[in-house]
Amino acid sequence: MLQGSSVDNSGPSFTPLVVLELASDAKEETIAWLMGRIKDQQQNGGAELLVEQLGPGVSTQEKYNPNIFLVGASWQRLLSGAEDLGLFKEFSDGSMRAFTCANKLNFKEFKGDGDSFLSMAECQYIIKHELDTLRAKDETHVPGYTQTKLYPGKSIVRRLQSKGILIQMFPLHEKEALKRLSFSWYKKVKLSLQPLDDIKHYYGEGQALYFGFLEYFTFALVPLALIGVPYYLFDLDDYDRYVIYAVFNLVWCTVILELWKRFSASLAYRWGTLSRKKAFEEPRPGFHGVLGFNPVTGREEPLYPNTKRQLRVYLVSLPFVLLCLYLSFCVMMIYFLMEGWALSVHDEEPTFWTGILLFIPSIIYAVVIEIMNLIYRYAAEFLTEWENHRLESSYQNHLVLKVLVFNFFNCFASLFYIAFVMQDMVLLRQSLATLLITSQILNQFMEAFLPYWLQRRRNKKMIHKVRKIRTLEGKELPLTEQVRLEAHMSTYLGTFDDYLELFLLFGYVSLFSCVYPLAAVLVVLNNITEVYSDAFKMCHVFKRPFSDPAADIGVWQLAFETMSVIAVVTNCALIGMSPQVKTYFLDSETQLILWTVAVEHVLLAFKFILTFVIPDVPKHIQIKLARLEFESLEALKKKKMLEASEFSKNVQ
Amino acid sequence: MLQGSSVDNSGPSFTPLVVLELASDAKEETIAWLMGRIKDQQQNGGAELLVEQLGPGVSTQEKYNPNIFLVGASWQRLLSGAEDLGLFKEFSDGSMRAFTCANKLNFKEFKGDGDSFLSMAECQYIIKHELDTLRAKDETHVPGYTQTKLYPGKSIVRRLQSKGILIQMFPLHEKEALKRLSFSWYKKVKLSLQPLDDIKHYYGEGQALYFGFLEYFTFALVPLALIGVPYYLFDLDDYDRYVIYAVFNLVWCTVILELWKRFSASLAYRWGTLSRKKAFEEPRPGFHGVLGFNPVTGREEPLYPNTKRQLRVYLVSLPFVLLCLYLSFCVMMIYFLMEGWALSVHDEEPTFWTGILLFIPSIIYAVVIEIMNLIYRYAAEFLTEWENHRLESSYQNHLVLKVLVFNFFNCFASLFYIAFVMQDMVLLRQSLATLLITSQILNQFMEAFLPYWLQRRRNKKMIHKVRKIRTLEGKELPLTEQVRLEAHMSTYLGTFDDYLELFLLFGYVSLFSCVYPLAAVLVVLNNITEVYSDAFKMCHVFKRPFSDPAADIGVWQLAFETMSVIAVVTNCALIGMSPQVKTYFLDSETQLILWTVAVEHVLLAFKFILTFVIPDVPKHIQIKLARLEFESLEALKKKKMLEASEFSKNVQ
Repeated sequence: MLQGSSVDNSGPSFTPLVVLELASDAKEETIAWLMGRIKDQQQNGGAELLVEQLGPGVSTQEKYNPNIFLVGASWQRLLSGAEDLGLFKEFSDGSMRAFTCANKLNFKEFKGDGDSFLSMAECQYIIKHELDTLRAKDETHVPGYTQTKLYPGKSIVRRLQSKGILIQMFPLHEKEALKRLSFSWYKKVKLSLQPLDDIKHYYGEGQALYFGFLEYFTFALVPLALIGVPYYLFDLDDYDRYVIYAVFNLVWCTVILELWKRFSASLAYRWGTLSRKKAFEEPRPGFHGVLGFNPVTGREEPLYPNTKRQLRVYLVSLPFVLLCLYLSFCVMMIYFLMEGWALSVHDEEPTFWTGILLFIPSIIYAVVIEIMNLIYRYAAEFLTEWENHRLESSYQNHLVLKVLVFNFFNCFASLFYIAFVMQDMVLLRQSLATLLITSQILNQFMEAFLPYWLQRRRNKKMIHKVRKIRTLEGKELPLTEQVRLEAHMSTYLGTFDDYLELFLLFGYVSLFSCVYPLAAVLVVLNNITEVYSDAFKMCHVFKRPFSDPAADIGVWQLAFETMSVIAVVTNCALIGMSPQVKTYFLDSETQLILWTVAVEHVLLAFKFILTFVIPDVPKHIQIKLARLEFESLEALKKKKMLEASEFSKNVQ
Repeated sequence: MLQGSSVDNSGPSFTPLVVLELASDAKEETIAWLMGRIKDQQQNGGAELLVEQLGPGVSTQEKYNPNIFLVGASWQRLLSGAEDLGLFKEFSDGSMRAFTCANKLNFKEFKGDGDSFLSMAECQYIIKHELDTLRAKDETHVPGYTQTKLYPGKSIVRRLQSKGILIQMFPLHEKEALKRLSFSWYKKVKLSLQPLDDIKHYYGEGQALYFGFLEYFTFALVPLALIGVPYYLFDLDDYDRYVIYAVFNLVWCTVILELWKRFSASLAYRWGTLSRKKAFEEPRPGFHGVLGFNPVTGREEPLYPNTKRQLRVYLVSLPFVLLCLYLSFCVMMIYFLMEGWALSVHDEEPTFWTGILLFIPSIIYAVVIEIMNLIYRYAAEFLTEWENHRLESSYQNHLVLKVLVFNFFNCFASLFYIAFVMQDMVLLRQSLATLLITSQILNQFMEAFLPYWLQRRRNKKMIHKVRKIRTLEGKELPLTEQVRLEAHMSTYLGTFDDYLELFLLFGYVSLFSCVYPLAAVLVVLNNITEVYSDAFKMCHVFKRPFSDPAADIGVWQLAFETMSVIAVVTNCALIGMSPQVKTYFLDSETQLILWTVAVEHVLLAFKFILTFVIPDVPKHIQIKLARLEFESLEALKKKKMLEASEFSKNVQ
């Protein structure tokens, strides 16, 4: 039935780019239909891609899934796909332009027949897009599954995914390129920057922006760390002097966030995602509703009334989040009670056991918080799924918001309580340091080493099996084994958790900076190891993710900016409460508070003015974008003029 | 030389749209060259418009300017100009699309050869655009004026304007349409809305948006006014009860500004300016610099380094504005000193003359403020001119900002001083009422009646002259006289002053709402008369302005939003200072202030969340815009597919 279904290990006759894994019990009929549609010509509504079944490889003795398919495409097909997607590439004059086949020779890196023009990540992204937009024609259901309805225009892949017939679809790693990337990225001991362009080349823009942000954030914190060290070394107990440090910190946080926008715009321009038009977004796989006509496309698709969704968000999700925050608050209060009780027991009759007792509440609290975060994450995902968002982006935004608020509260509520209710600055500093250090250690462990260890165990089994038959460890695995190995790797779930971690670290640095200037130092150190562990996990632990053509860090920019606004408020309050400032207003506490509030308002106003004054896109890129737009307008005008003169000639 | 230069009153052979008035001593050579360029074909770099000299009319006995020209165009030319400009018109399916000649029959109002498709305002805007973009070819100077340099690509009209050879360029009124418009707008006594679509039809989108905003603002204030009246009638002295009123006011102000954005988006969509692409902006006439190449267009034009401009803004303009604010502050302090002195004199020995003396400081202060505003306005214009902005929009933004800050300070500084330094609520209420009422009366007088009276006197002279010869008053003036009459009318300087007035009124309503709820009532009454006086002055006092295709109220939206943020701060402070609230916190003033600050922060946060939650563009318009974009993407894809299949056919 399929050309490539012969049992050979030599691999397919084309460069395999993407792997489709269907359920092992998927019906023959369905597979034949799907492969036919994938290979069919575009005029007939197919995707015009190449596809071959993966051979069984060496693992024939065990149960394995035979329904793994490799997808590729000819170079012509990929180039025309790049044009469909509106991919921006560097033009011969150095500007970034949407690629068109008609104009291909004018693009800088286009050589010969263009087989090295697109990066593998781009090719994989194009194939993903083509597969995703493979639509049902007149099929009313998936052949072989009469229960799985289709309607004209429905994305076939999405439907198969939501019904579990298609288990997964993932791009393949490139062994050689990965080796080179990982060497220049984290293997050599060096004092150079990350190879962001190479990361973009291999993983796509979204990933590269994350690593760019991580690096930028680290460098931006270095001045704070440098100023923070002497404060820590020489003024250990005199936290009143931190006033200047705090003011510097506030201005600095605002400035770095604004400058990041500019830097990110430069990166996105260089990578061609800044002015790229977004394609029309498909409904996400889990979206359901009554069949109707989409008002935008006119295609038949499920519709779900927006008011119903709003009701779910405001009447169920919002109260649920508030309830969870309240619960978290209760847990925190219980922790403080326990802590107080342990302290009183220890003070009454200090023994070795009461000394240990002192640590118990903190440990219990930390464990409970972790458990709550975990349960809440599931609940948030369930709720956001239930809200039934049509678009993946809207789903992500709602999920991020829910998780963000809860994590923020869990992380910082106790610190706020210590700072503003108990007003115990020494305890605040201790708690801050403890929280920061333990969370860093936990994170690094949970994030990189644990998954690596699990993966390694799995790998070893597989390699062990393979070695028995043919190769030695360290040598190249044959393609078939490689694909099966990658199919079992964990799926990278996006940059969400990585950004969340940075967000919380940013909170530790900015919210209570005047109490614990060493925080910046710790965060800088953490970020340096974070670069390595994140790079490592991207290269060795996870399946390669599809690239995501992001132009900025999206909702996270807003999250970081909100954090910096909250930081102004907390730092002003802390400064207002500090004894040294109080000595200036000995006679009147009212005056002190009024001044604090006034300073806070001035700082906030200054922040907003700064946001307006610093342009989000650097001037030279603005000019390039304007030139592109101007040229397209002029071209249109010239075309019109030509048509008019031809028309007048014809009339004469 | 020119076809229409014969001395006849029958008018030109085409519909005159725009009037060009050249200096009466302009050289024959220059005029011939300019008219030639205007009439020349587009292929030769001309504007392809029709132009005729205006006859001398009846005023031959007096000195008059012979160099007045009427400009018009054929319908074909106007339609192709509309396409150049990317004018949006209603398509046959009810959506708004950019007009193209190829597709003209699919537009809803296109009938016959399309001679009623474009409104006169649109035609005039097209002609203005064509004249503005009439560029020098290989001329090195204006013929006849060797000193007036030109370079390839320089806008001829702008250069003639900046050298005073072209005195003015204005669109003609339409007597009949104006009569109909003014009748439906303000002449009939009615309880209906303003005919916004007709206003847009006659004056263009910018004007119509102003009147739309004025009307919206008035209606939005009605609930506040209705709630304010009983407060005023029954609780005259008990301003503590105003707390609820103030909170309502704050939320209301936020909501109406957000809803206005949506309403304005609806209007702009209906008028086709919402998604229209801005044409490339020409440098403003006064802009000068060293000749170089524009990095965007590649054309030769004067360049002025941005850093130099920034230096001028931050090192000269900013200190100047701050100095002016300080001066204004000093004047205010002198006023309070004078007031105190007058009061003490009156208290010592109250006579009739000391009673009058009490009013003197206020009168002097009011007069001085008016004079300062006037001088400052000139200074601001001079400074902004001197900052040498390349674009008119950037010039306008800098001017608006300068004038806004100073006017805000002048208007409200004394009220802030009374409220927060003197803490005299009775005086605050009195001052607020006095300022509000006097400024309203002064404004209405200065804005409409004075210019009307001046205009009327001028008209009478002209009509008197004409009547001697041919017609009676009340009958139609011949075109020649009409043009000369309009050439002498005042030039409408844009919506700046109108918006500024509304902005200050908004300040009176929102900043101290808890002290004087009647302010809303007064502002509603003022706005109703304002509609009439503004409409009247647009129809009868000023030259018709060129329409301005605005999609929103621009920088004023920001200004109003900033005012509503300041209003949150002031109202919270006023509530915190009120005796009734103080009774709740008898034991601790600190607690009172902390609570006030907390409430203020919560309100501010709520405002920002509201801004995010309420989408700026209504859902149904978002859908229409998305559909348009989707269709253009699909069309592109289909076109590509066709090309590909044709290509494959050719290959076979």
